[in-house]
Amino acid sequence: MPIGEFDLIAKFFTRSVTRAALGVGDDCALFAASAGMQLAVSSDMLVEGRHFLPTVLPQRLGHKALAVNLSDLAACGAKPMAFTLALALPRVDEVFLDGFARGLLALADAHGCELVGGDTTQGPLNICITVFGEVPTGEALLRSGARPGDDLYVSGTLGDARLALEVFRGQLALAGAAFEAVRCAMEQPQPRVALGLALRGVASSAIDVSDGLLGDLAHVLRRSGVGAEVQVDAMPRSDVMRALPEALQRECTLSGGDDYELVFTAAPQHAARIAAAALTSQVNVTRIGAISAATGLRLIDRDGRAVVNTFGSFDHFKS
Amino acid sequence: MPIGEFDLIAKFFTRSVTRAALGVGDDCALFAASAGMQLAVSSDMLVEGRHFLPTVLPQRLGHKALAVNLSDLAACGAKPMAFTLALALPRVDEVFLDGFARGLLALADAHGCELVGGDTTQGPLNICITVFGEVPTGEALLRSGARPGDDLYVSGTLGDARLALEVFRGQLALAGAAFEAVRCAMEQPQPRVALGLALRGVASSAIDVSDGLLGDLAHVLRRSGVGAEVQVDAMPRSDVMRALPEALQRECTLSGGDDYELVFTAAPQHAARIAAAALTSQVNVTRIGAISAATGLRLIDRDGRAVVNTFGSFDHFKS
Repeated sequence: MPIGEFDLIAKFFTRSVTRAALGVGDDCALFAASAGMQLAVSSDMLVEGRHFLPTVLPQRLGHKALAVNLSDLAACGAKPMAFTLALALPRVDEVFLDGFARGLLALADAHGCELVGGDTTQGPLNICITVFGEVPTGEALLRSGARPGDDLYVSGTLGDARLALEVFRGQLALAGAAFEAVRCAMEQPQPRVALGLALRGVASSAIDVSDGLLGDLAHVLRRSGVGAEVQVDAMPRSDVMRALPEALQRECTLSGGDDYELVFTAAPQHAARIAAAALTSQVNVTRIGAISAATGLRLIDRDGRAVVNTFGSFDHFKS
Repeated sequence: MPIGEFDLIAKFFTRSVTRAALGVGDDCALFAASAGMQLAVSSDMLVEGRHFLPTVLPQRLGHKALAVNLSDLAACGAKPMAFTLALALPRVDEVFLDGFARGLLALADAHGCELVGGDTTQGPLNICITVFGEVPTGEALLRSGARPGDDLYVSGTLGDARLALEVFRGQLALAGAAFEAVRCAMEQPQPRVALGLALRGVASSAIDVSDGLLGDLAHVLRRSGVGAEVQVDAMPRSDVMRALPEALQRECTLSGGDDYELVFTAAPQHAARIAAAALTSQVNVTRIGAISAATGLRLIDRDGRAVVNTFGSFDHFKS
């Protein structure tokens, strides 16, 4: 006899909750934000074939589904508190669910983020997570705060997830270890939560890179009413990336997508505080350009020459 | 040229927000619960063919997607504040989106519940809403509070949504006006938010009926460690229902599902307060039985004779 909906919730997703007054199993989860805190909320939906491939290990998928949501909290400088999980599955697959739950809950535990409720149903595979964090009132990092003269930074490295996608698409060949490295970047992104927290009161704006650096940066520029000059050869790259043709490096780092790094701005006098934030959160941060009063995006190469922007941005209804 | 993801959000779902400090269009939505309040959170995922039929009007689907979530808040006695919407669509269909958004936002406005963020992607049609409400700390209605001797009540009428489903399945024929009435019950349920608020401090437990009265009541009994005696002929029924064979009436009212009425318990001395709550929230409330110390569910008919419980409960992975 197949396991039913309620058994499924109980078996894989019910855990004792500590933060929430009431967790999985009542009509609502109940919890309180601390005094003086705003609640930061973000929701992401992952669909097979679009956000992940059918070949992904369930454990990595569980990790990624929460990671992309935590990345949104990181971009706001919010501390993770709790999340809900809504899951549509074609059928009850206990091997899948066991792996998925382990990957999901391991990342949740690492960030002190509690599963407080959700929904399961039969249907084409679909994972929707809504995450809740808290941030002192008025201190959230926004897209709208970039100011002319600010330095422009990005965390970690860019483009590896795109390399993995190109391999899966048969457009690129990589040796075993190199492929494993970029596949890990695609399937197990590390949300920059600690960096986001460390950037409160230092960064003037932030966004996470999900659709490609230039596309996501454009949201910041539009919201802030400013422009930027970006040094295309300054993009932080992995060793795997550096071994590839330069045109491919630029394409993948500038518009690859699925990076879940933070792009942020800060006044030049905060350079030392940015370095300190990188150090405490144990992630590299690279200056990749500067904000200008003139709107629009100008790309320059290592010799200061203009680079024509032919780099796209990912759109779920256009790609 | 097809409309893209960002245009789509802007065109159909961006509205000025009043409650939230920051709404659709940043990495997170930001808002604060009032002092002394707990946040109540619920998430529901709706899949075509399982929660709604392909024939449903987009406007009604938009209504229902939010209604089932508001019903969870109602069952907790929480006041709606805000919600996020994650939407997977096979393609951008502006006629669908226009209707869907109108139905959704009309119900949201009626309950002062603000759309604060979300996600759109390409994929099999899937609607995931996470709703946030607030309730004074410690005053939420829970499933676990039913006590022996409590009266058992249900709001509105039961079973009409199931009648509509049977018509769509070709198992039942109803004349035009009767079909329209039950179809409306199925496609445009009215979440009992006002009743839920009025029951704070009066009801000892509550749940909303989504999977069928007896199945949902069983969750309350298990959580509360009690049993119940239910008068099967006391179920509140519409005129359409009353004209049908008695066996069908019992089946649909006791295990029909998709009702979104509140089942709740209260001490007998609160009978007048229950009546007052029904009056102020303008919904009928019917006493359908009583809670017992002996666990288990006993069904009796209008003559006090035992009725064998052959009524199922809806399970998304078993039906």
